[in-house]
Amino acid sequence: MIRATTRNARVVGRTMGRADNLNEVLRRHHSVAERCLSPLGRRLCYPQGGIPAQAAEAKGCQYNATIGQVTNDDGSASALSCMAEQITGLPPEEVFLYAPQGGRPDLRHLWKTRLEQRIGCAMSLPLVTNGLTHGISIAADLFADSQTDVFVPSPGWCNYTQIFQTRRGARVHPVSFMTGSPHKWDTSGLLHRLSKVKHKAIVVFNSPNNPMGYTPTIEEAREFTRALSTVTCPLVVICDDAYQGMVWESGLAQDGCFGDLTRCDNLLAVKVDGATKELFFFGGRVGFISFGVDGEAGEVLEEKARALARATVSSISAPAQALVCRALLSPDLESQQAHLRDALRQRYVVLKEAISDSNLRHWPFNSAFFALFDVGEQCDTIRSRLIANSIGVVSFGDVGGLRLSYSTLRASDLAHVVDGIASAVRG
Amino acid sequence: MIRATTRNARVVGRTMGRADNLNEVLRRHHSVAERCLSPLGRRLCYPQGGIPAQAAEAKGCQYNATIGQVTNDDGSASALSCMAEQITGLPPEEVFLYAPQGGRPDLRHLWKTRLEQRIGCAMSLPLVTNGLTHGISIAADLFADSQTDVFVPSPGWCNYTQIFQTRRGARVHPVSFMTGSPHKWDTSGLLHRLSKVKHKAIVVFNSPNNPMGYTPTIEEAREFTRALSTVTCPLVVICDDAYQGMVWESGLAQDGCFGDLTRCDNLLAVKVDGATKELFFFGGRVGFISFGVDGEAGEVLEEKARALARATVSSISAPAQALVCRALLSPDLESQQAHLRDALRQRYVVLKEAISDSNLRHWPFNSAFFALFDVGEQCDTIRSRLIANSIGVVSFGDVGGLRLSYSTLRASDLAHVVDGIASAVRG
Repeated sequence: MIRATTRNARVVGRTMGRADNLNEVLRRHHSVAERCLSPLGRRLCYPQGGIPAQAAEAKGCQYNATIGQVTNDDGSASALSCMAEQITGLPPEEVFLYAPQGGRPDLRHLWKTRLEQRIGCAMSLPLVTNGLTHGISIAADLFADSQTDVFVPSPGWCNYTQIFQTRRGARVHPVSFMTGSPHKWDTSGLLHRLSKVKHKAIVVFNSPNNPMGYTPTIEEAREFTRALSTVTCPLVVICDDAYQGMVWESGLAQDGCFGDLTRCDNLLAVKVDGATKELFFFGGRVGFISFGVDGEAGEVLEEKARALARATVSSISAPAQALVCRALLSPDLESQQAHLRDALRQRYVVLKEAISDSNLRHWPFNSAFFALFDVGEQCDTIRSRLIANSIGVVSFGDVGGLRLSYSTLRASDLAHVVDGIASAVRG
Repeated sequence: MIRATTRNARVVGRTMGRADNLNEVLRRHHSVAERCLSPLGRRLCYPQGGIPAQAAEAKGCQYNATIGQVTNDDGSASALSCMAEQITGLPPEEVFLYAPQGGRPDLRHLWKTRLEQRIGCAMSLPLVTNGLTHGISIAADLFADSQTDVFVPSPGWCNYTQIFQTRRGARVHPVSFMTGSPHKWDTSGLLHRLSKVKHKAIVVFNSPNNPMGYTPTIEEAREFTRALSTVTCPLVVICDDAYQGMVWESGLAQDGCFGDLTRCDNLLAVKVDGATKELFFFGGRVGFISFGVDGEAGEVLEEKARALARATVSSISAPAQALVCRALLSPDLESQQAHLRDALRQRYVVLKEAISDSNLRHWPFNSAFFALFDVGEQCDTIRSRLIANSIGVVSFGDVGGLRLSYSTLRASDLAHVVDGIASAVRG
């Protein structure tokens, strides 16, 4: 036992040495990112001598006995036929055997090419995550700690508080980008708060925004990037681009801010996106995290994220990755996406009409799946009234909002639902 | 902005109130578990007013506009046909729409029934995890911190150090259950180490063990449980039952120790298992975590684990869960499993024969997919030599071992591979 303990200490020592080296490379190539690392982020490096690394080295061997999985005599996957017969469209090897750590390389490169075609900027190789939550959670583990102020959008997704505050012990501050009546895009509140940060900060930028369903105009997005480029504390900006591409009006910043943010040298931009909404694959849990820097700094951050994923969930579900690969390789992908997006846009148009015929107050919306009604403190009471009338919506108590996901309703039902909300508000 | 911040403080306050209540319930019903909670474990509770909770309340509504996913006019999943056409054996709703937080209820109950039939003991409803790593990682988040001594098996799976030490900052100590030559089962080293623990401890018990491929005999397992029942510090025992059922000899503790451990009132037993090895679904990433206590304490621990999963990866891949449900409902499951296990047992028998004809030293093995050769400090050099001869194995530098996964080799190749290892050891 003593022998094992001594050797283990050596292994741990080697690991710390490698982590220190990674931190030093990061400091040289992206000092802001290095200063933003959490203690956990600092400790991370991919275990060099671990099983996945050794399996990768043995990849071409005729007798590959590295991995604890089961193959038939011809090297094919040993699958139970009660499962295999359900998915005859995919080779069993892509479904039943482990996917590589960090995600299928072909999938990672396909996604990167797709992003480059749209936003062309410096970025690391995207890492496959278990949905977008996992990508945000990885960014939180890397950069959030009790010395970090995290600014999340308000109205915003409630899970940010759990991810950054409950899990990581950071201070979460909701900030509004909409002020006045009628609502007007305004980033001065965020800038003011950032000027008071003592140690380091994270800004979560979610566009299109959930629950507002709002994407800033091209000019508003430029103003946001310009504002952030003046911030002096160490800063990570996480672009939660879950609803990327789901934009129903022209003149909007439909590709988000990640590309422009990568060109600000006072911050690190992180992009979280995925197949969940963009490819209508909600159940799949295939997301991506990419860092807005290439070269060695990008490689260091990718390695730290991959090491973290290895120690949290290990690999990501293979059948889901196989399906996303099929989609990205399909010559019909664009037209199939356009077809579903057109159906959503049609619901958006009908909903907008129905709302303008009502006297409901609401935040601006122009994208994604949502409209957010401004109904005040009674929002949860109103929600209960609506359930009694068989209408399900989500209340956001912190802003007094009611979110309607029109993406799950028939266009022909929207007027009735809006009427229902209007009468529930009247009480 | 001030309004939003004040309200957010109220929401956070409510959340902390609920977490305090959960901790109090746990203290009353399982005080050991309560004393073992990490600071993060203490903070966790499932957000009551969050989107998933509100969506659950609206489940029966005719107009359900709670969730940000997309359905067709008839309520069916809006899937891209380039993906849907690959999996015609499963309904699109089970693949393309979100699976519930914590996992599909039918899957959770099917797994629980399966466990109850085998080991019948008090336990919580199993929570679906992204493979077994995620289950172990959830247990680490709940119970490991810098005040925790974590005892992991040596020889053992190298990822335990990343999960408990790198991620959670706990002190990891490898302990051997095999002493002497020839190797003999011996838990006295572990007991001695546990008697010196200052605050609280975690023991990871992995049976069958990876990389040894060893399952204790029924008597050895009883001795292990008896020994742990005498420990006086607050203790969590995590049973990593990844290779459950893959046992090739009689007289072994084939159902592990979880059942007996749940009857020790000085510790909390946690069971991590899943479809990965047991159902030969390596790529799926469907695991389970169950706590060895029922009633309110079990519910509290399940809620804390579910809250953690929500803030780390959110839901688990739906197509993989659908496939595991199909397997568990199949009347042919037992015979299909037996067929694949028989093929593995056949390889085990051939390997044992080949090894006994060689003069290779090795740890005892009787189960799972592995044999571990005791080749000393040069193990990694020997591994490189083997790669040059197209034989891939994994070296465990901390114990001077070479692990052969016979589960991925033809029975007819095993004698050749063993010969290759023997000559690589000779140099």
